[in-house]
Amino acid sequence: MSEHPWPAGAAWLDGRFMPLAEAKIPVTDWGYRRSDVTYDVVSVWNGAFFRLDDHLRRFQASMAHFRLQPRETIEELRGILHELVRRAGLREAYVAMDCLRAAAPPGLPRHPRNARSYLLAFAVPYVWLMPREVIARGAHLVIATARRIPPVSVDPRAKNFHWADMTQALFEASDAGADNPILLDLDGNVTEGPGFNVFSVTAGRIATPDRGVLEGITRLSVIELAARLGIPCEIRPVPAEELRAADEIFISSTAGGVIGVTRLDTRILGNDRPGPITGRLHESYWQLRRQGWHAEPIDYARAAAE
Amino acid sequence: MSEHPWPAGAAWLDGRFMPLAEAKIPVTDWGYRRSDVTYDVVSVWNGAFFRLDDHLRRFQASMAHFRLQPRETIEELRGILHELVRRAGLREAYVAMDCLRAAAPPGLPRHPRNARSYLLAFAVPYVWLMPREVIARGAHLVIATARRIPPVSVDPRAKNFHWADMTQALFEASDAGADNPILLDLDGNVTEGPGFNVFSVTAGRIATPDRGVLEGITRLSVIELAARLGIPCEIRPVPAEELRAADEIFISSTAGGVIGVTRLDTRILGNDRPGPITGRLHESYWQLRRQGWHAEPIDYARAAAE
Repeated sequence: MSEHPWPAGAAWLDGRFMPLAEAKIPVTDWGYRRSDVTYDVVSVWNGAFFRLDDHLRRFQASMAHFRLQPRETIEELRGILHELVRRAGLREAYVAMDCLRAAAPPGLPRHPRNARSYLLAFAVPYVWLMPREVIARGAHLVIATARRIPPVSVDPRAKNFHWADMTQALFEASDAGADNPILLDLDGNVTEGPGFNVFSVTAGRIATPDRGVLEGITRLSVIELAARLGIPCEIRPVPAEELRAADEIFISSTAGGVIGVTRLDTRILGNDRPGPITGRLHESYWQLRRQGWHAEPIDYARAAAE
Repeated sequence: MSEHPWPAGAAWLDGRFMPLAEAKIPVTDWGYRRSDVTYDVVSVWNGAFFRLDDHLRRFQASMAHFRLQPRETIEELRGILHELVRRAGLREAYVAMDCLRAAAPPGLPRHPRNARSYLLAFAVPYVWLMPREVIARGAHLVIATARRIPPVSVDPRAKNFHWADMTQALFEASDAGADNPILLDLDGNVTEGPGFNVFSVTAGRIATPDRGVLEGITRLSVIELAARLGIPCEIRPVPAEELRAADEIFISSTAGGVIGVTRLDTRILGNDRPGPITGRLHESYWQLRRQGWHAEPIDYARAAAE
């Protein structure tokens, strides 16, 4: 058997490794049927995980939030993720981990406390949030009419698949000829978009929402990079009007890093090119990643686990 | 082969029949990964579907809302549902139908417009919302702190699996020693609970929420029954305070019909027994069902479809 037998994707599902194409979940499990599941996604670049500790810490907090408790410890999960990337043989990968609830066995009340939870994880070739040419020219965004699900209903800091608002917003964006949407909260403040955090730049100062959003790991990297570069960065409510009037806008995602935004609704920003602060952050981000910033290397030669 | 080969459950998944235990969905499909799916559930009682037309009409409206378009027509789906109950050989069944989105194929932008959708349906032995003994004594409910996802984020009239608020509320209920929770909207009005609509009775008048809830088919049956019985029934906002002070409370569900509520938070209603109006509706509901009200009989002897 090849050392890297599953280049199209390797999965761990409920206790065993398999090719991704074989990883399927029962249609009666509540991870699907009640979206009773949490997840995280970490990237592998140049043969190393990026900020794996941060992703594992967040995943653990998300599981606790939803009262999901898999068999595996976090350190066992770390080993599984390494093994998945090894089996896929990928130097650049998108690595997802889910913890989902099964269903209560027949005869027991249909309550989540009566159902076990289990882990799913998989490694696939790196996924870009948007096509490379869109990232190069700058993204065209619209502010959607769908409002982000509020934290009092589902806390977005515990990463989840409650995406109907995002999906509706994606259709609104494509109907308007744009690449992606941004969603507001119920008070008209900026939250996030499908798979990314949002940053606004006005008079040399960056601002990003402090609530109603996933606390993205790439968002955290941007905040750290801004500090390194001496660019003020405020974490606070960002009204839609501030974003609409911003000098620059950019977004952050595990699936693409720092991406400039050149259009918002009918407005063209910075002569239709990503702005200078966006550019500095984008360059710094990829430069540091190439230098091994927060990197946890994968040992591709190690013998496969049993 | 037996005429009813799959008594534990029969499924239709993406174009073919199979035992329910074989029905599994790829972990990369957005029906799971973005909860990009709608569903409906219809009951079979005494060998006949109950209000199948109403369920199919609602399912069609839900699919249109989420822009999900399966291959099969609604009339084909009707035939599939009949065939599932035949293959399971069940006289009392819980029959679910989902339409979910796959994922965009590699190479295309990760946008829902690039992904096909497909049907899943299954028939299993009838499921009760709560254990029979709980239904007999009357349910104990609590008002949860989790607030129902608002319609401006996800429209609850289009039936969906965005249940993290419901799941959190279920834990709140069991932590408090209750059977089930009721969720309020962001304004403090009553919405619904996990799998049921809520009714309040004050001074001989029934009230049930007009917004922020699934327009349940059993809810519709209750509204029709109240008219038959000459009991006033108002469909309007119901403040939490009104529910807390109600003479009677009951809930409605495809998985149980009309169920009395005897406790709400620390309050005991009607000497801990379901109230008289609840009792009349409960009796009328099951009497009419036995008489074939809105029934669409299943021909169990018909030869199985290919």
